[in-house]
Amino acid sequence: MTEAEATIVALETSDIRFPTSVDLDGSDAMNRDPDYSAAYVVVHTSAGDAHEGHGFAFTIGRGNDVQVAAIDALRPHVVGRPLQATLDHLGDFYRDLVHDSQLRWLGPEKGVLHMAISAVVNAMWDLKAKREGKPLWRLLADLSPEQVVELVDFRYLTDALTPDEALAILKRAEAGKAERAAQLLEQGYPAYTTSPGWLGYDDEKLTRLCKEAVRDGFDQIKLKVGADLDDDRRRLQLARDVCGPDIRIAIDANQRWDVGTAISWIKELAPADPWWVEEPTSPDDVLGHAAIARAVAPVRVATGEHVANRVVFKQLLQAEAISFLQLDAARVAGVNENIAILLLAAKFDIPVCPHAGGVGLCELVQHLSMFDFVAVSGSLERRTIEYIDHLHEHFADPVVIQSGRYVAPTAPGFSSTMKAESRTRHTYPDGPVWTTFQGG
Amino acid sequence: MTEAEATIVALETSDIRFPTSVDLDGSDAMNRDPDYSAAYVVVHTSAGDAHEGHGFAFTIGRGNDVQVAAIDALRPHVVGRPLQATLDHLGDFYRDLVHDSQLRWLGPEKGVLHMAISAVVNAMWDLKAKREGKPLWRLLADLSPEQVVELVDFRYLTDALTPDEALAILKRAEAGKAERAAQLLEQGYPAYTTSPGWLGYDDEKLTRLCKEAVRDGFDQIKLKVGADLDDDRRRLQLARDVCGPDIRIAIDANQRWDVGTAISWIKELAPADPWWVEEPTSPDDVLGHAAIARAVAPVRVATGEHVANRVVFKQLLQAEAISFLQLDAARVAGVNENIAILLLAAKFDIPVCPHAGGVGLCELVQHLSMFDFVAVSGSLERRTIEYIDHLHEHFADPVVIQSGRYVAPTAPGFSSTMKAESRTRHTYPDGPVWTTFQGG
Repeated sequence: MTEAEATIVALETSDIRFPTSVDLDGSDAMNRDPDYSAAYVVVHTSAGDAHEGHGFAFTIGRGNDVQVAAIDALRPHVVGRPLQATLDHLGDFYRDLVHDSQLRWLGPEKGVLHMAISAVVNAMWDLKAKREGKPLWRLLADLSPEQVVELVDFRYLTDALTPDEALAILKRAEAGKAERAAQLLEQGYPAYTTSPGWLGYDDEKLTRLCKEAVRDGFDQIKLKVGADLDDDRRRLQLARDVCGPDIRIAIDANQRWDVGTAISWIKELAPADPWWVEEPTSPDDVLGHAAIARAVAPVRVATGEHVANRVVFKQLLQAEAISFLQLDAARVAGVNENIAILLLAAKFDIPVCPHAGGVGLCELVQHLSMFDFVAVSGSLERRTIEYIDHLHEHFADPVVIQSGRYVAPTAPGFSSTMKAESRTRHTYPDGPVWTTFQGG
Repeated sequence: MTEAEATIVALETSDIRFPTSVDLDGSDAMNRDPDYSAAYVVVHTSAGDAHEGHGFAFTIGRGNDVQVAAIDALRPHVVGRPLQATLDHLGDFYRDLVHDSQLRWLGPEKGVLHMAISAVVNAMWDLKAKREGKPLWRLLADLSPEQVVELVDFRYLTDALTPDEALAILKRAEAGKAERAAQLLEQGYPAYTTSPGWLGYDDEKLTRLCKEAVRDGFDQIKLKVGADLDDDRRRLQLARDVCGPDIRIAIDANQRWDVGTAISWIKELAPADPWWVEEPTSPDDVLGHAAIARAVAPVRVATGEHVANRVVFKQLLQAEAISFLQLDAARVAGVNENIAILLLAAKFDIPVCPHAGGVGLCELVQHLSMFDFVAVSGSLERRTIEYIDHLHEHFADPVVIQSGRYVAPTAPGFSSTMKAESRTRHTYPDGPVWTTFQGG
């Protein structure tokens, strides 16, 4: 088998779940008892270089098996492909998956099938980066503007962003690229922490974790809101008192409200000066977000972790509905669609502040934000990546936070590889963590 | 086992596919080679009355197994429930499925998981209607306005439609209900036919099928467009010549265009007087549809078969993006969410003209339109149900078309029961139709 003849020989999937609901980690107004889970993919090749591509869709427990079944449905598009030609044209690969004329019916471009595509596309990017010996952010930043444009599917975007406009954005960012990469390696990328603010935590724990966040150097924290207005007022004021006036405090309603309720609730919380209000209503409601944004200004609206695809992001930008765009690494169709989203945000001059947490999402999104800084927006202004101190110990190349900033990863790949032992232990329902599980 | 103790004892699923791609039935600009398929559900009870509830999600082939896996994931919400109490409160049942705090992550309220909920919810409505000895449209029309409102989930709708407004719409329609039901039984409900217009058909077949449609009494047909402008112009003019000026000719682009292309393409076809243009762009693009509608008026825009949920329909209405709302029986979460959509359409005074075809969709949507006529909008004006002459022979209570109109069904149930022999024969991959399949 020569290198030129190497192919993709297997797409291995597994259902991996962590029993996080026991401690109410991750509890919010809509997600009461998540068990953070990964529908996990390993791409195997015949190249003989020992490199595997790792990726996953993130879910919160039940239904992770459905997510695995969706990834399995993509196997015929992957196995048997020539390795190098596929890695050289990941734009074509991504478009092949998205435009399968029968599978497309299950979305189109949304939900279970789209998240499955994200897992596979991200695994291929991990493989490519490992083979090229670069962390993904660096690999992407080293592409030419023309190569980046080739990765994007502009279908349904051209009324807001044409290939020529995308190219111009990327060319504008060519100046200073090397300096920004050096700055990134030296100083890292700003982070904020959601760890203090889960709804399931009592006031004592909230206070303690706020103090720790400030001590650890974070200049922004986030609190979950939306279940009870009096509780929200008290918790927000408590956090403000502990953190002082200079720490940004974002609030996150996790889609709890209708438009009218959102507006009145946010106005009640406005005196505590929230930095943004996140997911005030349905992630599908572009016009609703726009109405809320107009009504609660100067409080800023943020959303994105449940936004289904680039077409919805396009509209949120067109409608001036958001002041922060919170992309997710594994809900839209992976790296390629997220490049389109970064370009859209740059076009509309809206900062991208990715959603993270869960399991492995911090590991993934850091690469996207760092690519954005070096090669797309060229800016750190109002930009920060969510950080939650959960489950990183299960990853081979876990995120590193120093003084409230993400340290730029230098190991080759997408930081997406979960340790083999962690995968074995947490396989559902037959891994030892689950066969011995006593319930929450 | 007394009737009061009866429970739901099993949720049986199966993967049923028809090799329709062989004849290019159903071919359009985005769906080149569909194999019409059903992820099929049978609800079994311990009631001893021999009634089963039948429902299904419709797909076009690959991925139907993923759809079945999603229905299987709902089983714990269904099996073991008390039968009568569940059927008496199908609003609660539907909301339980939609708001499972872990499964919700896979949508929320869109794609594979949402279609799975539609299959289960529709099966429960079929069961209820069979047990009450009524066709579903009649069962729904016999409910009080208060009972209908109780079936709806108003979350994310109240900025456009409150429960009180919904109640007022339903109370307004109380007058004349009996007369409209009698009219329906006597005259049926208007239909239009898509059978002549598939892209895979040549001009001779198009001409012949247009003549047959007019001869059969249809006053509206639909042609697929969007692959080639010259072909579209020729085919549309051919159909206009064959049908004459009095037959409405709708055109359907199946999401083929970006916003700018849609506008210029539709303007090119406008001289042939299309009645509506359907799915000009992404079903997620509310603002895009609105921009197209403004630019191509007086040509009217229609969409809905791929609209993910009531929140997107709400926005299409708020943005004045559509002149016809094309609900689908099995993409949103079944009867309950479609009642919300009928009420939204009534509030905005937009006629509902359901998407049908595929396998079994005609059987389902007729009940929703007939309920709309009798008890919601109270009108037939500009209203018509899609009809395609495919695969009805596989159903126990198939639709009946007379003189271009749907005959109101009178058999108990939702007309959703596929014959047992058809299900066995078309089970994928082990049924005899597939084990002996020679390819297309």
